[in-house]
Amino acid sequence: MRIDVGGAAPYAVSVRSGALQDVAVSERRRALLFDEGVPRPFVDEVRSRLQPEVEVALPRGEACKTLTVFAEVLSTLARAALPRDAAVIGLGGGAATDLAGFVASAYLRGVAFYTLPTTLLGQVDAAVGGKTGVNLPEGKNLVGAFWPPKGVWCDTATLAALPSATFREGAAEVFKHGLIADPVLCDDVVSGGFGPHAAHLEEIVGRAVKVKADVVTRDLTERGERAHLNFGHTLAHALEAVTGHALPHGEAVGYGLHFAALLSRRLGGEDVSKLTERFLAYQRPRSLPDFAWQDVAPFVARDKKADSRGVRFVLLEKLARPYVAHVDEADVRVAFDEWHAFVRGMVK
Amino acid sequence: MRIDVGGAAPYAVSVRSGALQDVAVSERRRALLFDEGVPRPFVDEVRSRLQPEVEVALPRGEACKTLTVFAEVLSTLARAALPRDAAVIGLGGGAATDLAGFVASAYLRGVAFYTLPTTLLGQVDAAVGGKTGVNLPEGKNLVGAFWPPKGVWCDTATLAALPSATFREGAAEVFKHGLIADPVLCDDVVSGGFGPHAAHLEEIVGRAVKVKADVVTRDLTERGERAHLNFGHTLAHALEAVTGHALPHGEAVGYGLHFAALLSRRLGGEDVSKLTERFLAYQRPRSLPDFAWQDVAPFVARDKKADSRGVRFVLLEKLARPYVAHVDEADVRVAFDEWHAFVRGMVK
Repeated sequence: MRIDVGGAAPYAVSVRSGALQDVAVSERRRALLFDEGVPRPFVDEVRSRLQPEVEVALPRGEACKTLTVFAEVLSTLARAALPRDAAVIGLGGGAATDLAGFVASAYLRGVAFYTLPTTLLGQVDAAVGGKTGVNLPEGKNLVGAFWPPKGVWCDTATLAALPSATFREGAAEVFKHGLIADPVLCDDVVSGGFGPHAAHLEEIVGRAVKVKADVVTRDLTERGERAHLNFGHTLAHALEAVTGHALPHGEAVGYGLHFAALLSRRLGGEDVSKLTERFLAYQRPRSLPDFAWQDVAPFVARDKKADSRGVRFVLLEKLARPYVAHVDEADVRVAFDEWHAFVRGMVK
Repeated sequence: MRIDVGGAAPYAVSVRSGALQDVAVSERRRALLFDEGVPRPFVDEVRSRLQPEVEVALPRGEACKTLTVFAEVLSTLARAALPRDAAVIGLGGGAATDLAGFVASAYLRGVAFYTLPTTLLGQVDAAVGGKTGVNLPEGKNLVGAFWPPKGVWCDTATLAALPSATFREGAAEVFKHGLIADPVLCDDVVSGGFGPHAAHLEEIVGRAVKVKADVVTRDLTERGERAHLNFGHTLAHALEAVTGHALPHGEAVGYGLHFAALLSRRLGGEDVSKLTERFLAYQRPRSLPDFAWQDVAPFVARDKKADSRGVRFVLLEKLARPYVAHVDEADVRVAFDEWHAFVRGMVK
């Protein structure tokens, strides 16, 4: 399945089992940045196709998303005297491709970038839309650039190599794309059997990618509609922060989607909270430590969607009908308490 | 004098003695990043006008252009929870404004940026065009972003506070703009009396800014014509590297312009080398250490304008008629030897 992403510099996303065999890059000089946790056969496949002159094995997962790794990789490219018409190729999960994209955006003020996401989260979320970046000690994704790739290959065969919990992490973004735009995807996820060997996996992944592709095509730099993709993410980011990032992003989003459903209901929207409860039952995220609203509130206030008038939330008027609004803290508190009561009662 | 810069996000450059009194920023929340060497009255003027909630004093001059300072400043902004609709204001020479612009481009993936350059180099070169960035241990300006400011105020009164050698440094870029586009500026610089108290200083600075503004308006991301602004810079960057940056940028450009004039002549262009000799007599750059072509060549090869086919140079067909071409190393060597013989013979 091929999905086109529009905007100033259009590109295509290829989704299929075996997509890594299709990878093609027009630039002659190439740097491959890959998560050292990517199984060797996939790395070798890309290596033999692209013959990169620079290879950098990145620390596994989120550990690579620091300004320290950013600086080290940039120096590696500079020592190789990689020119401006070279390409940077990122291979791995969302963290590796976020770091690789930010490197590509900044090296010589910008070189070509291609991304080969190997996790479900990376394929349906990070790979499309051009958001790149790293974390700061003060919070996640606080630094980066909008730097769209020139091409994306999502090889669904790589998903079977991951722990099933990692797959279920990524399912949160598939499910979220269902909630905000394509409710059929919600059913695909919660109606049983959604895993790396699911029937129609290519189609489901492709369809989830298309939701994001259509949104970012209409709104490249997140001035408007693109914020909808952050449904559930305000609380998710706060939960990640409050747990010192022990809670993986996809599980935080799972929790955050349920909170966003409850907040939407409180503000007059359709009640989709039974659906988000079913998602949590499917995902089985790890349980949360004890914490109170006071612990979370400062991180909510620091959300990137906040502006000088306060924190804005993405809400659902009904399924597939998202909107953005400033919300009074009193309403946030009520929804938080409902959410907190539910998650404390979840069967472990 | 007001100069308009076009492109996707147009902005204005205000050039006058006292321009800092005109500074106005629409964003309510503001971070002021200033070179700690800027005289106190200028910092206080800006401070009292803008009432920034975050202030960062940057290490003097080029010392601030590192990824370490970049990371520290970003963390400072994050700790203040500066939101996405805030503004970063850079005050100082080209180094401070380059660092500030790169911070603005990357913080929350981009916030508004304003620049208040206080050196001649900063006013006629760095302030316009949106190039921002930092150095790597491997070379200058190897990392950054294109991030145009929303407004630029060039207060020519700040130039009198600088050592006269610093003013003459910046004169290299005024003179270069003369060579590539507006030869009257060459005469303004070399015909005597060009200093911080020169008659018509506002007009000369404004006219030099206009050369750059017109070029970047036509070519925002340096795919074509904008490369002309790098006339003289290939050797200049190599000289900076080979001297461990003991040679200031503007003096390196002074030397580099003469080399570019000799190379242009060798390749059939008009001989403007008498003019560049006069410029060196005006500028009186510090003398160069002993070095040979072999010392410089690796840095020339790493030039950002290099591509997979080799190093490209900006050349003059005649005054105000620049072009870009790949040049055989043999020709580069001949011009280098001519240049080297001349600079070794310069009266100290």
